[in-house]
Amino acid sequence: MSTATPAYDELSGTWTRLHHFGHLQSIAGWDQAANMPPKGNEARAAALAEMAALMHRMRTDPQLPKRLARAEQEPLTELQRANLREMQREWRASNALPESLVQRQQMAVSRCEHAWRTQRPANDWAGFVENFRPVLALAREEAALLSAQSGLRKYDALMDRFEPGMTCAQVDRVFGEVRQWLPGLIQQVCEKQAAENARQPLIVPAGPFALTAQRGLCDQVMRLLGFDFAAGRLDVSTHPFCGGVPEDVRMTTRFREDDFLGSLMGTIHETGHGRYEQNLPRDLLGQPVALARSMALHESQSLSFEMQLGSHPGFVTQLAPLVRLAFGDQPAFAPQNLHRLLTRVQPGLIRVDADEVTYPAHVILRYEIERPLIEGEIEVDDVPALWDAKMKELLGQDTRGNFKDGPMQDVHWPESLFGYFPCYSLGAMYAAQWFAAMRRAMPDLDARIGRGDLAAVFDWLRDNIWLQASRWSTDDLARRASGEPLNPAHFKAHLEARYLG
Amino acid sequence: MSTATPAYDELSGTWTRLHHFGHLQSIAGWDQAANMPPKGNEARAAALAEMAALMHRMRTDPQLPKRLARAEQEPLTELQRANLREMQREWRASNALPESLVQRQQMAVSRCEHAWRTQRPANDWAGFVENFRPVLALAREEAALLSAQSGLRKYDALMDRFEPGMTCAQVDRVFGEVRQWLPGLIQQVCEKQAAENARQPLIVPAGPFALTAQRGLCDQVMRLLGFDFAAGRLDVSTHPFCGGVPEDVRMTTRFREDDFLGSLMGTIHETGHGRYEQNLPRDLLGQPVALARSMALHESQSLSFEMQLGSHPGFVTQLAPLVRLAFGDQPAFAPQNLHRLLTRVQPGLIRVDADEVTYPAHVILRYEIERPLIEGEIEVDDVPALWDAKMKELLGQDTRGNFKDGPMQDVHWPESLFGYFPCYSLGAMYAAQWFAAMRRAMPDLDARIGRGDLAAVFDWLRDNIWLQASRWSTDDLARRASGEPLNPAHFKAHLEARYLG
Repeated sequence: MSTATPAYDELSGTWTRLHHFGHLQSIAGWDQAANMPPKGNEARAAALAEMAALMHRMRTDPQLPKRLARAEQEPLTELQRANLREMQREWRASNALPESLVQRQQMAVSRCEHAWRTQRPANDWAGFVENFRPVLALAREEAALLSAQSGLRKYDALMDRFEPGMTCAQVDRVFGEVRQWLPGLIQQVCEKQAAENARQPLIVPAGPFALTAQRGLCDQVMRLLGFDFAAGRLDVSTHPFCGGVPEDVRMTTRFREDDFLGSLMGTIHETGHGRYEQNLPRDLLGQPVALARSMALHESQSLSFEMQLGSHPGFVTQLAPLVRLAFGDQPAFAPQNLHRLLTRVQPGLIRVDADEVTYPAHVILRYEIERPLIEGEIEVDDVPALWDAKMKELLGQDTRGNFKDGPMQDVHWPESLFGYFPCYSLGAMYAAQWFAAMRRAMPDLDARIGRGDLAAVFDWLRDNIWLQASRWSTDDLARRASGEPLNPAHFKAHLEARYLG
Repeated sequence: MSTATPAYDELSGTWTRLHHFGHLQSIAGWDQAANMPPKGNEARAAALAEMAALMHRMRTDPQLPKRLARAEQEPLTELQRANLREMQREWRASNALPESLVQRQQMAVSRCEHAWRTQRPANDWAGFVENFRPVLALAREEAALLSAQSGLRKYDALMDRFEPGMTCAQVDRVFGEVRQWLPGLIQQVCEKQAAENARQPLIVPAGPFALTAQRGLCDQVMRLLGFDFAAGRLDVSTHPFCGGVPEDVRMTTRFREDDFLGSLMGTIHETGHGRYEQNLPRDLLGQPVALARSMALHESQSLSFEMQLGSHPGFVTQLAPLVRLAFGDQPAFAPQNLHRLLTRVQPGLIRVDADEVTYPAHVILRYEIERPLIEGEIEVDDVPALWDAKMKELLGQDTRGNFKDGPMQDVHWPESLFGYFPCYSLGAMYAAQWFAAMRRAMPDLDARIGRGDLAAVFDWLRDNIWLQASRWSTDDLARRASGEPLNPAHFKAHLEARYLG
């Protein structure tokens, strides 16, 4: 059958095949984390490597550039053109790096990450640096190559892998602004909460909390949040994540008998990722244009669920009866106390344990170190002193000599995921921006949430974010959804309203 | 690097890749049965079809026949030569049929099997026949093609897919022999058990049996049977099976609150399959020579576990305390009563519900119908009358007009799995033959089993069956293991000893 767009059709077929292979890759990856017994690991790793090699061969097929160029000349619809743009982006990312660099990076990362697992608990910075230096050197080499090809700055070229279109210039502006008011805000919130706690002590829930009851609670809250259990599952893994495929979302969580809030809020967070995936547009599924836009946008969904909605006082009044149903009645489960527990602010050393208010400080600190590291303005040996100074400045914490809870705490650097950290806080800011836009469109939004009428929230997210997938650039998507590109003022307003209001 | 066996090495590399892709296929298939939510089905089917197409392309690569021929001339070890033989067998099976026939078959089977799911409960033979006719016509076409290429008889060519080397001539001889004594034996056993029941009524266990307790019991019994939980799992699916890969065996079972014995014995059965897979030789894993020998040999392992061992009076004395631990004490759980429950013989209509003694009658009946069906000696319309006559003759059952519990009861015919049924009973016979060989080597075998010393059984099976994989033809393997090819006298002796002794 001849069409007017033969090159585009052929490309589209290639990406459909990639989607099918990616499906198996994704389910096997989820299984590895959620089900696989230990002795299966070697065979699984070999099978997944074989699949990665196959998909890499498909993405570096020498026929692709010609087809991409020919498709450019074909009479495409706007949506097809957007899809072609995303194909080109994926093609560039897969073809930018020589095989030898990719292999050297895999080896360096694998060595560094593996050693880090024991070096971190041993606080062995010197040992870590030995493996981390080659990881950084190769990341700089990668950044230089990507930069030469794309014309982007080196760090921007790395960040582009996770957040297409985002630049240091924009991050500098946004984080620079946040940096002005954040330490002061943290201070104010801590003082306010200390006074409140003095007046009325916070009541901590009394465990243990049976795992089956926790599991049941998570299921119920996921249903409340609209997760489609006919198109996804919740299971347990050491490191919670949202995997699977848009047609079959595999979320994981972990449970601790002495604390249910961590798992519950983690589940609410992953449910945001899950609903984004479950509601990507179905008509073009398998094509790059139907994929989630970016990591920051993905995070904007998990944080819309966990922070904007999950810690909303109105939502907490919906949550409280479910918590009582799961674990019996306790004074700690009164909605007002539960809300105070969920919005407790406490500067600390560890990013993943941080609350909504202090979290951006952890991210800004990392960004301010990894950007100059990649640009070659500082070296690995400069990191500890910079870390200590910025922790003091941003969070008032002393981290001297404490590498394990300092620059060694995250897996991102050993894994060479430079450019990823900003996405977390950009996501939090986008989430605040989405809810500000919702409130403009629906002035009674907070009352609705308090009544448990969440459909309005989900409808807005579905129409403005989920169904838009990768059709627009992130800036354009933000403009269409909220009238402006990323604006951190909404995040500031949200924190002030929630924590100082 | 140049070697003396370049063609063989290249083939070996191809099969390693097939092994890796088969891994993902297998895990995704298991997931589909054990985990997948319903809306994931379409995407999973598409992903699995893509993978099947890729593996089919690899197996029909026009380079393969040249390489297989060149490898024939290379200085191979005996093991490599056996591997090459298995590669050739796989190549022949994958290249024998024209693509168009394969596709027409897939469509006919899919239509027939799908309609059968509702036609069977509706007892709609006329409707079933409409879809089954094309399935049979295509199976005959397939058999004719395979027969022309291999020189085998048509039915043998189909059976060869499951049981390489087995022929109608051999099956006729074996089943013909069994047919002589089986109806008489069934009669005798029923009379003996009726007399026993009159003397001392059989005590039926009183449920309900909590699912978690059943699950725990299955885990314990699997451990007792040596299943390696670090290299496999037990999960739940509608139709129990043993899937996964040798490095990571995925068994499934299903639980019913009102009966625990079905699930327990089903789990013991699958554990036999599982241990075979878990103990295939590791050094050549991924190569065809390291795969399980055949379906009958696989069944000989599941039946060694379920029947030879699982219903052995000595093993039942081991089982009884575990059952009491799981569900509390009941008179029904006395070892002697438990053993009577497990060896109760009752002619019935349904193959999958049949006991050890009547099961071969169901298989012989199907074989005696499907062989002439494939050879073109009878037609679909002849099936019901033949079924009725043979059920009467072999099991004394009246099935006239009852198609749903008659020729429509199995999924095999709608799925065009002609030639598969004999494997079940050949497996039961091999299992009896293995245990007879064990008893010759270890005259105190039964006492050992009674003491719970099962290592001798597992060691024998590992050395003689599991580690031999596909190194020898089935006949040679049987000769090496037990001194003779398949001999149904051992099965007869086993049934007589257990049921009339």
